[in-house]
Amino acid sequence: MKSAILSVGTELLFGQITNTNSVYLSQQLNDLGIDVMYHYTVGDNPKRLAEMIRQAFTDCDVIVTTGGLGPTQDDLTKEIAAEVLHDELVLHEDLLEELEGYFKKINRVMTENNKKQVYLPSRAVVFDNDAGTAPGFALEENGKTIICMPGPPREMTRMFERRVRPYLEAKSEDVIYYKMLRTFGIGESMLETELQEWIDGQTDPTLATYAKEGEACLRITSKRRTLEEAKAAVEDMIEKVNRKVGQFVYSYDDEEFYHVVGRKMIEQNLSFSCAESCTGGLFAQTITEVPGISAVFDRGLVTYSNRAKMEELGVKAETLEKFGAVSEETAIEMAEGLRKVTGSRLCVSVTGIAGPDGGTEEKPVGLVYICAILDDERVSREFKIRNTNRKWNRNYTVLCMLDMINHLIEGRK
Amino acid sequence: MKSAILSVGTELLFGQITNTNSVYLSQQLNDLGIDVMYHYTVGDNPKRLAEMIRQAFTDCDVIVTTGGLGPTQDDLTKEIAAEVLHDELVLHEDLLEELEGYFKKINRVMTENNKKQVYLPSRAVVFDNDAGTAPGFALEENGKTIICMPGPPREMTRMFERRVRPYLEAKSEDVIYYKMLRTFGIGESMLETELQEWIDGQTDPTLATYAKEGEACLRITSKRRTLEEAKAAVEDMIEKVNRKVGQFVYSYDDEEFYHVVGRKMIEQNLSFSCAESCTGGLFAQTITEVPGISAVFDRGLVTYSNRAKMEELGVKAETLEKFGAVSEETAIEMAEGLRKVTGSRLCVSVTGIAGPDGGTEEKPVGLVYICAILDDERVSREFKIRNTNRKWNRNYTVLCMLDMINHLIEGRK
Repeated sequence: MKSAILSVGTELLFGQITNTNSVYLSQQLNDLGIDVMYHYTVGDNPKRLAEMIRQAFTDCDVIVTTGGLGPTQDDLTKEIAAEVLHDELVLHEDLLEELEGYFKKINRVMTENNKKQVYLPSRAVVFDNDAGTAPGFALEENGKTIICMPGPPREMTRMFERRVRPYLEAKSEDVIYYKMLRTFGIGESMLETELQEWIDGQTDPTLATYAKEGEACLRITSKRRTLEEAKAAVEDMIEKVNRKVGQFVYSYDDEEFYHVVGRKMIEQNLSFSCAESCTGGLFAQTITEVPGISAVFDRGLVTYSNRAKMEELGVKAETLEKFGAVSEETAIEMAEGLRKVTGSRLCVSVTGIAGPDGGTEEKPVGLVYICAILDDERVSREFKIRNTNRKWNRNYTVLCMLDMINHLIEGRK
Repeated sequence: MKSAILSVGTELLFGQITNTNSVYLSQQLNDLGIDVMYHYTVGDNPKRLAEMIRQAFTDCDVIVTTGGLGPTQDDLTKEIAAEVLHDELVLHEDLLEELEGYFKKINRVMTENNKKQVYLPSRAVVFDNDAGTAPGFALEENGKTIICMPGPPREMTRMFERRVRPYLEAKSEDVIYYKMLRTFGIGESMLETELQEWIDGQTDPTLATYAKEGEACLRITSKRRTLEEAKAAVEDMIEKVNRKVGQFVYSYDDEEFYHVVGRKMIEQNLSFSCAESCTGGLFAQTITEVPGISAVFDRGLVTYSNRAKMEELGVKAETLEKFGAVSEETAIEMAEGLRKVTGSRLCVSVTGIAGPDGGTEEKPVGLVYICAILDDERVSREFKIRNTNRKWNRNYTVLCMLDMINHLIEGRK
């Protein structure tokens, strides 16, 4: 099946908002085995909207639209969709009752124009909106389908998950199953090279690599008549992949690295603390995104100044003088000091030069030292990040820290 | 002038990448007083690309494209642009020399297909690419202009800044001048209401409000024959705006709040430290994004556990027992303790419930206490953030902290 994604709304053309709907829908449609041929964004322009729908239907079977379903007079998606697919809008009584009930519940007056939202094409398959007031719908004619959803991302993604996905799944005879593997430490080019024999001439399952800010992802997808067949095909390929690059895979379920590591800390009840310099709190902030982390996280010390390193962690003045704040020796003393102060089983420290300034010939921007201690095991490493962008360096440094911790935790098995 | 933005590239249709080019270009074009009518994204589909260019030209004067300028056989933007505007591709010798020189410098062999990049329309105004290998260009015919730029965002934005913006500015007789004001603590609806008398029936300058994650922005734009006139018109409006909502404005130059506050700390040489609980290091991480902050930032203590609050900051066990970790009393003891430990002139603390779990009837998710001390002045406040999203709550809490610090600093004038 071929599709086009149509985003309706002038606010998208001003450049103040990023169109996340089309990204989300592209992913979802591709997941369902539906090719996405075009993205269109139009303002509140009924003539052009109708033109684009007709044009998309010349080579697409499905059009998915977002936006233009609201109560104002600029909201014209339904009218145009009905016009193109030879239908007319009628009042859906049951939806009107629900809408009136909603306004009563939130104790607000329902203005006349709100009623507009419950006029839908007579042949429409209605998708209820439990996160907003405008229902969505699907309308078909002669093998052409248009699916109209609200613009606000939260409402749209919810409606897609609850109603549109099952609707589209029912249209296909095949079942798609995929796994998204996440790797760290290998890079997309090398990952592709290592898996070349299965990438070349692939049929099913398919393998696709993606670069993701310092990481590399691998998507293994199979499309079969039954879920069991598709699953088996994917799992077979995962086994092959593991034999080549298994040591770099940190998730088989598209999980964020910090989530994977945070989860392991919680599951294994590993009390932990962190001491950061160049990352400025980014590691602590990231790991505390994991709900429930308070069960194991004691404290994070952002010892930005040398004085703070000495006072909080007991780093020796001589060490800072002799080796500098950015050195393996300092990273080790930070982590050991943290262990003394907190008693946490898992301690990690980082010191480095995030940039863009602060680098020298001897110690350039991107130079980072990380030390991690788990019980009586300690590792320390130097990283030379070849980037001058402060934000990128800090983000990547956090990934390096997670990787070192992950290896420590996994090493005990 | 009316424009359309055309993004070329199949990778955009898979949903793995967000199309940031069209957002950037929409902003830039709007800044230049050029209306953006449509966004299109197509894959490597020459027939559809030509159709879309022709269609856009039925009501637009300018089309801006990104992508499709590379060396592979799928890169067909130039061929199509030349075809639609009745021109042909010719080898630009000077560009070929530059390209050969580049490959020599990086010590790599220039493959034959790389030469493709220096074939451009004969009438093209060439835009050099100093961040990549593919030059861009503008091509005109009968008042219709197409501007073609590389796909990679870094190359595209650089080319736009250096070459395309001046090219487009030269096409207009008028000068655009605008200021983007950033406010905190008022909200977009209220901001709009306060400025209603100037928003209604506005001609020049124009006023436009934008919501931005917990903040509200106001863009004041004037389009006149000279820069002086436009500037004067904008400044006149700013004076009017200040009289109504000046106390909420933290930047007149579209600067991020943390940048404004960090800058003031550095300028006034205010040594500072922070103590965080629910924000988990997000405040420290945010303020350390400001280059040069090491001149004033001493340390950040992420006292996530009660034990850490007592050990690091001297918060009393009785206080935690009587009032709880999330209380104004605890926030005050955290800040006072931080002052004792660090001696920093500016100390800020925060404790709260970020969610989604951890809330009770008495202390719901979104409840936050912040305390800020500057020399001998101390303020503490309770915030009731009406949101259950952890990330949103943490981000908004940091804004609240910045706001309190900003008021303390400004209060001394």
